[in-house]
Amino acid sequence: MPYQHVTEHCLAEAIGEGGLSAESYARGLEACQPALARLKQQHDEGSLPLLGLPKRRDDIEAFAPVAADYRSRFADVVIFGTGGSSLGGQTLYKLVDRGFGPPAGTPRLHFMDNVDPDSFGALLQALEPARTGVITISKSGGTAEPLAQLLILLPRFEAALGRAALGQHITVVTEPTDNPLRRLAERFGLPSLEHDPGVGGRFSVLSVTGLLPALIAGLDATALRAGAAEVLDLALSAASAESAPPAVGAAIAVGLLHERRVGQSVIMPYVDRLASFGAWYCQLWAESLGKDGTGTTPIRAVGAVDQHSQLQLYLAGPRDKMFSLMLLDVAGAGERIDAGLADDEALAYLRGRSLGDLLDAMGRATAETLARNGRPVRLFKLRALDERVMGALLMHFMLETVIAADLLGVNAFGQPAVEEGKVLARKYLSEMSVSVT
Amino acid sequence: MPYQHVTEHCLAEAIGEGGLSAESYARGLEACQPALARLKQQHDEGSLPLLGLPKRRDDIEAFAPVAADYRSRFADVVIFGTGGSSLGGQTLYKLVDRGFGPPAGTPRLHFMDNVDPDSFGALLQALEPARTGVITISKSGGTAEPLAQLLILLPRFEAALGRAALGQHITVVTEPTDNPLRRLAERFGLPSLEHDPGVGGRFSVLSVTGLLPALIAGLDATALRAGAAEVLDLALSAASAESAPPAVGAAIAVGLLHERRVGQSVIMPYVDRLASFGAWYCQLWAESLGKDGTGTTPIRAVGAVDQHSQLQLYLAGPRDKMFSLMLLDVAGAGERIDAGLADDEALAYLRGRSLGDLLDAMGRATAETLARNGRPVRLFKLRALDERVMGALLMHFMLETVIAADLLGVNAFGQPAVEEGKVLARKYLSEMSVSVT
Repeated sequence: MPYQHVTEHCLAEAIGEGGLSAESYARGLEACQPALARLKQQHDEGSLPLLGLPKRRDDIEAFAPVAADYRSRFADVVIFGTGGSSLGGQTLYKLVDRGFGPPAGTPRLHFMDNVDPDSFGALLQALEPARTGVITISKSGGTAEPLAQLLILLPRFEAALGRAALGQHITVVTEPTDNPLRRLAERFGLPSLEHDPGVGGRFSVLSVTGLLPALIAGLDATALRAGAAEVLDLALSAASAESAPPAVGAAIAVGLLHERRVGQSVIMPYVDRLASFGAWYCQLWAESLGKDGTGTTPIRAVGAVDQHSQLQLYLAGPRDKMFSLMLLDVAGAGERIDAGLADDEALAYLRGRSLGDLLDAMGRATAETLARNGRPVRLFKLRALDERVMGALLMHFMLETVIAADLLGVNAFGQPAVEEGKVLARKYLSEMSVSVT
Repeated sequence: MPYQHVTEHCLAEAIGEGGLSAESYARGLEACQPALARLKQQHDEGSLPLLGLPKRRDDIEAFAPVAADYRSRFADVVIFGTGGSSLGGQTLYKLVDRGFGPPAGTPRLHFMDNVDPDSFGALLQALEPARTGVITISKSGGTAEPLAQLLILLPRFEAALGRAALGQHITVVTEPTDNPLRRLAERFGLPSLEHDPGVGGRFSVLSVTGLLPALIAGLDATALRAGAAEVLDLALSAASAESAPPAVGAAIAVGLLHERRVGQSVIMPYVDRLASFGAWYCQLWAESLGKDGTGTTPIRAVGAVDQHSQLQLYLAGPRDKMFSLMLLDVAGAGERIDAGLADDEALAYLRGRSLGDLLDAMGRATAETLARNGRPVRLFKLRALDERVMGALLMHFMLETVIAADLLGVNAFGQPAVEEGKVLARKYLSEMSVSVT
């Protein structure tokens, strides 16, 4: 397996009354069985397209040429899209983006998932249209943010490049339905790629929405899917829920909510390259489970940084959280501290140590301290962080979320509550138009 | 006032049983009186240095020349420091950093608040020592992360620049005590600036830790302090708690916790430039209040983005959150969408609208929808976002936190629980050393 899933410190046997009792845990695992059986059936029938993604190849054939083209011609690639049309791509891009410019020979990716006019103005000012590619992603084809962004960008790019060239710079990704984005693409001759109608935004990271940016950034889409397939295969073939890590995770999260009122789920990778993973997880978990008055609140942290920000609360505040630490094997990584430089007695613990040693020690110490203080903590132990591991982690959390929804008795798909706000925002916009000519 | 603080939709009168009852609110305001009186006394006595910062000028005179020097000579400035030695600077830098390179004539700032060897390797590779300035911040002078980073950087910079030049490239900020960082600075001839021993990291944004990076980025430190002074003066001179916005906020937050079990506090600016403000707030609130089993959990979101990620949970999940939306007056800002381009009937609501209109409508719609769904929501309405407003918001939240600690009966200062993990991490590091020569 691409990761080791260590959950013993979520249980009362190990950490005392802050943990889940053996009885509740056993009941939770039992309750996962029908969910796993349903997943297996959906997989075999092909009725849940998410489960078919790991082994698809035909779609990659459709968008890989676009990625290769964008990669070869552009210095900047802008992705218009928000929520599930952005967070998956951001998560994958973080594997290569260290904040100091893109790797040689690859464009810089800009995920414009907000409509702040200040940020957008800075973007437009920074871009050189001739060296810029744009991808506009909206599953429904009707999301206000990417449509507004595209509508503002189009006349600028047309003025700079000419209408005939727009299709070489702008691609849209949307469902194969007649929708506003598709109509706009047809009017301006923009090529379009298909967003699978059966894969909701927050479950779409392993589809074109995540993999197209990933390919442009030079990542291996096949390896991402292969890692996901390993986790899926294991879950579908597991003899019992206990041997399916996503089921174990769901049983613990829901069990802690019901038995211990643990209503918050903190994800805390000790890896900068997983910092965006937390944002992706937060959408996945919140939108899938936050329904009918239930659900737990996902919170993202990053280790070791947030030891200096959140750990006080985690250790000494209310007992309302479970923790998922992601620990990469980084002991020995990075340059070592010269022993002569650290000859100060107060720095003895740093002599000959590397930053990797320090990060490793801090991650383990935090896990241990949380457990000692009776706070449920599980570990994802990673020997490496590459596409395979990333794909595996993504699939782990998607399956865990679907199973947890089953245990909570809510529908993991759809986000009915946000509709009211959308309608109201459109009403406010219409009212504004009175005062503008 | 630099901001309008609208709290009516936190009260049961306005939103029903999800809100705070009139009786609890009145009791909470009453309970704020002693906290306000104590603040006034501490201010007048000078016993809480935080309260003296807004009107200090002498310290700016000490570090402004360093800022001017760094600003004029360097392309990159690296800040080593974590938690309160980083988040304040990051928050202020976000006012000018839009992710597309620094404003002309100013260096790019890098806040290295983690010790991930992968990120650090990328930093070292990207830097040109001759064009790089370094600031190492540790109040105690003993924080492992910035010390380890500095110990790794020193020999590299010495090799590139010569020992005699190190003091022109590296500055340390620490308390005026004998400590490991200060001893290291003396050994290598690095200049040091004073960190006020009486101002804890998470309350230090208006001191050298935040203002030195801010000055390097071209911000107006005096205006930041002036904005803070307005809020402080109002709070100290308020005839009653009801006319001191930070007291109102504290009374509501603590009241909702006790009366309605509202254990989470979501901060959600509809302004990209306030995205880092949330991280700063999360440390301030979590470390100050998360003690003795109490406190509430701070959560940061950004609007409108997180409408597509968290809003489903916020509206339909458990009633365990209060919301602080920060709405900037952006209606009309940014380019308008050409009406002819949006002639599609489905896009009618976007015709002639700007991105600012869209963001404005979304912020108001979300506030309204939260209230309609009985979720307590308060607004910070901002006519502009400049140094004065930023300073005011920072002081608002610092005072609100100190007052809330008083209401909760915990000590806002110190973070006793994190010590255990630090000791354990050092133990793990020492054990490692056995296997390394």
